[in-house]
Amino acid sequence: MVRGRISRLSVRDVRFPTSLGGHGADAMHTDPDYSAAYVVIETDAEDGIKGCGITFTLGKGTEVVVCAVNALAHHVLNKDLKDIVGDFRGFYRQLTSDGQLRWIGPEKGVVHLATAAVLNAVWDLWAKQEGKPVWKLLVDMDPRMLVSCIDFRYITDVLTEEDALEILQKGQIGKKEREKQMLAQGYPAYTTSCAWLGYSDDTLKQLCAQALKDGWTRFKVKVGADLQDDMRRCQIIRDMIGPEKTLMMDANQRWDVPEAVEWMSKLAKFKPLWIEEPTSPDDILGHATISKDPGYSTEMKEESVKKHQYPDGEVWKKLLPAQEN
Amino acid sequence: MVRGRISRLSVRDVRFPTSLGGHGADAMHTDPDYSAAYVVIETDAEDGIKGCGITFTLGKGTEVVVCAVNALAHHVLNKDLKDIVGDFRGFYRQLTSDGQLRWIGPEKGVVHLATAAVLNAVWDLWAKQEGKPVWKLLVDMDPRMLVSCIDFRYITDVLTEEDALEILQKGQIGKKEREKQMLAQGYPAYTTSCAWLGYSDDTLKQLCAQALKDGWTRFKVKVGADLQDDMRRCQIIRDMIGPEKTLMMDANQRWDVPEAVEWMSKLAKFKPLWIEEPTSPDDILGHATISKDPGYSTEMKEESVKKHQYPDGEVWKKLLPAQEN
Repeated sequence: MVRGRISRLSVRDVRFPTSLGGHGADAMHTDPDYSAAYVVIETDAEDGIKGCGITFTLGKGTEVVVCAVNALAHHVLNKDLKDIVGDFRGFYRQLTSDGQLRWIGPEKGVVHLATAAVLNAVWDLWAKQEGKPVWKLLVDMDPRMLVSCIDFRYITDVLTEEDALEILQKGQIGKKEREKQMLAQGYPAYTTSCAWLGYSDDTLKQLCAQALKDGWTRFKVKVGADLQDDMRRCQIIRDMIGPEKTLMMDANQRWDVPEAVEWMSKLAKFKPLWIEEPTSPDDILGHATISKDPGYSTEMKEESVKKHQYPDGEVWKKLLPAQEN
Repeated sequence: MVRGRISRLSVRDVRFPTSLGGHGADAMHTDPDYSAAYVVIETDAEDGIKGCGITFTLGKGTEVVVCAVNALAHHVLNKDLKDIVGDFRGFYRQLTSDGQLRWIGPEKGVVHLATAAVLNAVWDLWAKQEGKPVWKLLVDMDPRMLVSCIDFRYITDVLTEEDALEILQKGQIGKKEREKQMLAQGYPAYTTSCAWLGYSDDTLKQLCAQALKDGWTRFKVKVGADLQDDMRRCQIIRDMIGPEKTLMMDANQRWDVPEAVEWMSKLAKFKPLWIEEPTSPDDILGHATISKDPGYSTEMKEESVKKHQYPDGEVWKKLLPAQEN
């Protein structure tokens, strides 16, 4: 049972000078200082539990996200956590649909990042009060409660609350076994840490060798700034990891659509599983065009449309029909 | 000839309590305080000319846009206006593609609004130094110079710089006559000022009568909060303006796709020219679905896809092929 009233929200601008080592560099973000807006919420309950939430930024501009968190704070302060948890969708709507603030979003950019930091802190507080990590809170949650946390605005034409509930209810079968399996074997992950664009070939080789030694089987490489450079680096990685292990690529929105098609026709020989963010992340039909180009393997064609880091469900819902056309 | 080096950029948070009178209210923004981040740039030239630029906000959150303007200021300060004007595309790219700041955009929401306020101030300064209003600066500009101001990133698959140049060069024919005609007769505009959602029927009638007296022939009405209310208000306006004058509708992103189709099938009898922002502004395929619904007149079907207030060229480029499918 959750408890307490939100009595304080504080937010810090936390920065790390990662650009000094070229860490995190890609074709569009060449000198990132990996940073965060760090939100802490406290309650008047006597347990002393705090909820912490961050959103990731690249250095400059973190103060703008901090400013937006402060603008949102009044939607959280003085609320009973019980009331938030009892109507999470309503709480989400309040944060995202404030009649004045949504104008500078909506659900995009700075306001999106600020909202996420606040929501992450609330989820963290909720889970800590229940004595669980967030994933376990979600896994244990009744499907009806889980869908009640989600705002289906703008996606009901492809997924309604009832559809989602049915999917989750079907998923109850075998859930315990899957949880056990996950706890024993872990969830498959990939590493990007070897292949930032700011790294020399020597650093790339050294980190890739270490990652192989540590048991990694999936590797992502940043591409898109210089084709010859990309071809050399992809060759190095593919040679080191061999033909069986998985290689992914990420252009971080660098290309125009025809440029993406041309560039990827040259990189296809390194057998990437996907190309991530080949162009503007909002260009659904552009992604469909790129994915349909005959220069790629079938496998890649499928994944290149499916796998992108998008800000909201809105974009996901459009990728599927666009691909089917 | 432009002159001077940008020596100062200041930005103010200007607010007006328009919500007190229900001015500007729509289905999503029920209590807007029409406001602005107001940017002023100065140069070290002796003419004392300042460039002013604003972007429009709804009250709360204007301080976040102000914060973002300050984060962008270093891309403008100490630059020669001559250098900015000589490579406007490069200047635009610097503002929108800062390797750290673009992460909290890119070209969306707060950063988009802040960038626009700064760019508006630069255009204003440029035009004032040339002794012209901005429209005249643009009209008189050599087509090659004009296209050189535009960043074609992400749109070259539907419009290249060469395509745009050809359009503008063809447009040179008859330009003088069109300019004369425009100066003599004005550019057709519509009014939204009668029909904010916050107005009573009496206020609506009074303002509509006044607008007709003032010679307006095109009227936009806010819809989307309550269907019965919309039907009553649309009936009042259509009765007052008669069958020949133009009526437009604007739902300000209120509906899901099926909801938009259902709602507009009820409002179609008032013969709207278009429905603006029926759903999420990013949902291209959703807009295509809504526009293809047989509940509308042919005229409306065309316009509902063409006419939307979108943040960038990216969205426009996608509307056209989506409509053709």
